[in-house]
Amino acid sequence: MSLTIGDIAARLGAEAAGDLSLQVARLRQPDEAGAADLALAIDPEFAEKLKGRAVRAAVVADGADWQAMGLEAAIFSGRSRYTMAGLSRIFDRDPAPAPGIHPTAVIDPTATLGEGASVGPHAVIGAHVTLGPRARIAGQVTIGDRVTIGADAYLMPGCRIGSDVTIGDRFIGQANAVIGGDGFSFVTPQPNKVEDYMAKGSITESLDPTEYVRINSLGSVVIGDDVEVGANSVIDKGTVSDTRIGNGTKVDAQVMVGHNVQVGEKTLLCAMTGIAGSTEIGNRVVLAGGVGVADHISIGDDSIILAGSGVTNRVPPKSVMMGYPALKQEVFMNIFKAMRRLPRLAEKVTDLQNRVSKPDHKG
Amino acid sequence: MSLTIGDIAARLGAEAAGDLSLQVARLRQPDEAGAADLALAIDPEFAEKLKGRAVRAAVVADGADWQAMGLEAAIFSGRSRYTMAGLSRIFDRDPAPAPGIHPTAVIDPTATLGEGASVGPHAVIGAHVTLGPRARIAGQVTIGDRVTIGADAYLMPGCRIGSDVTIGDRFIGQANAVIGGDGFSFVTPQPNKVEDYMAKGSITESLDPTEYVRINSLGSVVIGDDVEVGANSVIDKGTVSDTRIGNGTKVDAQVMVGHNVQVGEKTLLCAMTGIAGSTEIGNRVVLAGGVGVADHISIGDDSIILAGSGVTNRVPPKSVMMGYPALKQEVFMNIFKAMRRLPRLAEKVTDLQNRVSKPDHKG
Amino acid sequence: MSLTIGDIAARLGAEAAGDLSLQVARLRQPDEAGAADLALAIDPEFAEKLKGRAVRAAVVADGADWQAMGLEAAIFSGRSRYTMAGLSRIFDRDPAPAPGIHPTAVIDPTATLGEGASVGPHAVIGAHVTLGPRARIAGQVTIGDRVTIGADAYLMPGCRIGSDVTIGDRFIGQANAVIGGDGFSFVTPQPNKVEDYMAKGSITESLDPTEYVRINSLGSVVIGDDVEVGANSVIDKGTVSDTRIGNGTKVDAQVMVGHNVQVGEKTLLCAMTGIAGSTEIGNRVVLAGGVGVADHISIGDDSIILAGSGVTNRVPPKSVMMGYPALKQEVFMNIFKAMRRLPRLAEKVTDLQNRVSKPDHKG
Repeated sequence: MSLTIGDIAARLGAEAAGDLSLQVARLRQPDEAGAADLALAIDPEFAEKLKGRAVRAAVVADGADWQAMGLEAAIFSGRSRYTMAGLSRIFDRDPAPAPGIHPTAVIDPTATLGEGASVGPHAVIGAHVTLGPRARIAGQVTIGDRVTIGADAYLMPGCRIGSDVTIGDRFIGQANAVIGGDGFSFVTPQPNKVEDYMAKGSITESLDPTEYVRINSLGSVVIGDDVEVGANSVIDKGTVSDTRIGNGTKVDAQVMVGHNVQVGEKTLLCAMTGIAGSTEIGNRVVLAGGVGVADHISIGDDSIILAGSGVTNRVPPKSVMMGYPALKQEVFMNIFKAMRRLPRLAEKVTDLQNRVSKPDHKG
Repeated sequence: MSLTIGDIAARLGAEAAGDLSLQVARLRQPDEAGAADLALAIDPEFAEKLKGRAVRAAVVADGADWQAMGLEAAIFSGRSRYTMAGLSRIFDRDPAPAPGIHPTAVIDPTATLGEGASVGPHAVIGAHVTLGPRARIAGQVTIGDRVTIGADAYLMPGCRIGSDVTIGDRFIGQANAVIGGDGFSFVTPQPNKVEDYMAKGSITESLDPTEYVRINSLGSVVIGDDVEVGANSVIDKGTVSDTRIGNGTKVDAQVMVGHNVQVGEKTLLCAMTGIAGSTEIGNRVVLAGGVGVADHISIGDDSIILAGSGVTNRVPPKSVMMGYPALKQEVFMNIFKAMRRLPRLAEKVTDLQNRVSKPDHKG
Repeated sequence: MSLTIGDIAARLGAEAAGDLSLQVARLRQPDEAGAADLALAIDPEFAEKLKGRAVRAAVVADGADWQAMGLEAAIFSGRSRYTMAGLSRIFDRDPAPAPGIHPTAVIDPTATLGEGASVGPHAVIGAHVTLGPRARIAGQVTIGDRVTIGADAYLMPGCRIGSDVTIGDRFIGQANAVIGGDGFSFVTPQPNKVEDYMAKGSITESLDPTEYVRINSLGSVVIGDDVEVGANSVIDKGTVSDTRIGNGTKVDAQVMVGHNVQVGEKTLLCAMTGIAGSTEIGNRVVLAGGVGVADHISIGDDSIILAGSGVTNRVPPKSVMMGYPALKQEVFMNIFKAMRRLPRLAEKVTDLQNRVSKPDHKG
């Protein structure tokens, strides 16, 4: 891959200066960049690292003195991370499967693939599947029966799409992600004693469930447009209705979304977050890494749950929560500060007790 | 799929009324159900949602006035979730592989498959494997050498069964689950300093292990009857003896069971729970979501560990535990309530100090 | 497999006594061992279990009276777990793929495989891949374009190596591990409000991100020599530079290493540990099970983070930390002990208030 500075600037919609015909092959950090690379030097601290290197071109902050940096050409960045998104598209060497259907792929004759779809080696596509145009199905993906996926999907190796799943446009499913696992739902012939005891906090007899009878998932998973699901994440099917993920929501790696969960739009579920069955997550919510959310509750729109928290109760919109059980961040921090002083507080109380008890205290 | 109300009631062992010859195609929630569906309206609240819809048949609570709901036929439910389990079997459209062995499957000539077994595309079955009757092996499953699995197994796409694993009847392994990963077990040439320092709480020199020498897993995994393992879960092999999962135990998605762990019967391991090496979990235990259990300890029969807890010590039978480190639920809740009042308590102590110190306090 | 006691002792570099020509087939715990097995009886407690069994040979502690145990031959152990590592290599029946390239494997003609490499059924190897000598690639592994892996690699079924990943010698990638997932990195057209609100702890308006624009991962993953990655773990690519894992570091199952993370040498990442983006983990660090580490921080060399902890700030070298947010172990334990007494402390304060307020207290 070799691109001119002028081309890159044009594709970014950014200003550029110097030798616009200069060609670069890769985007690199200043301390790893060579003469054939475009250095990423928006941050003044990084620009400093260009000194003494053979770098000829860089992306720099608006108004930066690129010539003083020893460059022959420069692209000016507006908002740095947004520029980064554009650059990452331009320089991406994404290992998409080669165009066309690999001869080892097993595709049911009733499946319909959109124009320009590619299917990699050993992929398996079931009956009555519909894939939109330009779908990129990597090797060893499986797609179950009656699945519908919109335009421009990209499924990475080992991604598993269960039967009856419906997904919108521009979906990305990373390696070994499972969309449409079976929900964890069992019933006992007699009334189950577990919930009683969880409420009471003590157990007086055996919990013997006689047997657990499985409730198969009759619902499936419905996913909107512009959704991504990270590597090894799992989204379970609903029991009767569908588990749902709204438009523009991004799911990181090793996330678990339980059966019947409803996730809104433009919500972020960061790595290792788990959402138990039938819970509703609103729009524009951020669940940071390692968050656990109990079943049958709701988290309101525009809320942020900080990393490692365990949410056990309904969260109103626009809340910032942390801890286990999760509390408002301000409340948690006040308690946490007081906890850090707790050993000292205990000493103070002992001291007070001594003083109040002493005869001579009484004057 | 089309079934009559009479057939469904007969298969459920339930009472029915009205036009028993009426045919329905799917089970649906009242607000999603149409004229061709059987609505699930056991809960009176859901029954209310039938109003104004074209629904002709529903499952209703015992004694419900189905004709007043505008229905032409009704099935009466006993215990609602148990009825649900039966309904979920009747309406299941489980994407089982087509009968027979797909020509792309690679099956070692020494493997033995029971009567009626089906094997999907690109599945790989190793040497000296024995599968019971009616096994359903989906596409892209791998089964290692010398594995034995009982009757009616269902392995979903990408499920990995390691070598020498033994599994009973009616096993379900969901997509990308790994049964028989290698245990995480390393040894250092010199005595390892880590445990000393963990006990002491301070580190005075480099932990340099020189090198970690791997202990290969010579044991395997032994799983009883009626066990299910969820998507992307991992059960590691034992070091010398086997890791064991008892009859009727259900393992949710993204659970991690370490080497040498012994799990009893009819126990539930909910999503994202991790059990460290050599720990014993009793019978009829519930580990709720996101629970961590330390190595070399035990959790007694009929215990419940609430979601997000970290168990660091032995738990007696019939305990309800929560928190990190986990405490009895009642103890935890008393502490948690006191913690919430802790900032106020600190103020009280400061106030007391002021009053006790003031000269005029002494009266 | 059948080995003589003499051969085993020689391979271990250990002393042996008795009938060195005696043959054994398997290594077993004393209570599971039979006449054809070598019993593992180093621990005196285990040696006791040999009584009354048909066992003829055992590994025993240095100086143990093997003849009194009823044995015909014995191997003497030095450091028991180190001996165990040697034994586990000798008795390993690791299901390596059969030598050679399985005809169903799909290997790009530009890939280069070292001498003695084996590739299992349905494996997929991309363009410009280089595998070192004796690589064992199990069935259904995928290796992306431009990947380089050193000598003696072992990739288990379903292991996914993303494009441009570089790995050293003696690498083990367990089943369904994903090396080189795409980083979770998104940018919004306007400045993102999430970080502001996380700092402030309260949200005053909608977080509406308009849209999340994806930053593709241009970096990849660089892994040193002697590294193992457990089942279903994920290591994400870097954004511009590479995510790095140092020599001799061992990663357990279901671990998540985020984009740009730098992990040092001989470090242990135990099961279900997650490290957020751009964080640096030093050398010889132990992150016990279920640890979460925030983004953009560092954990110093020779530190131990106890299981279930959440690390939110920089950790100096040689620290032992626990809790959430993680504190020094000693500090945490003091607070935890005080918390356990907190309900009693609150009573004391109430009692003091009563006494200080009472008129007769004033003497």
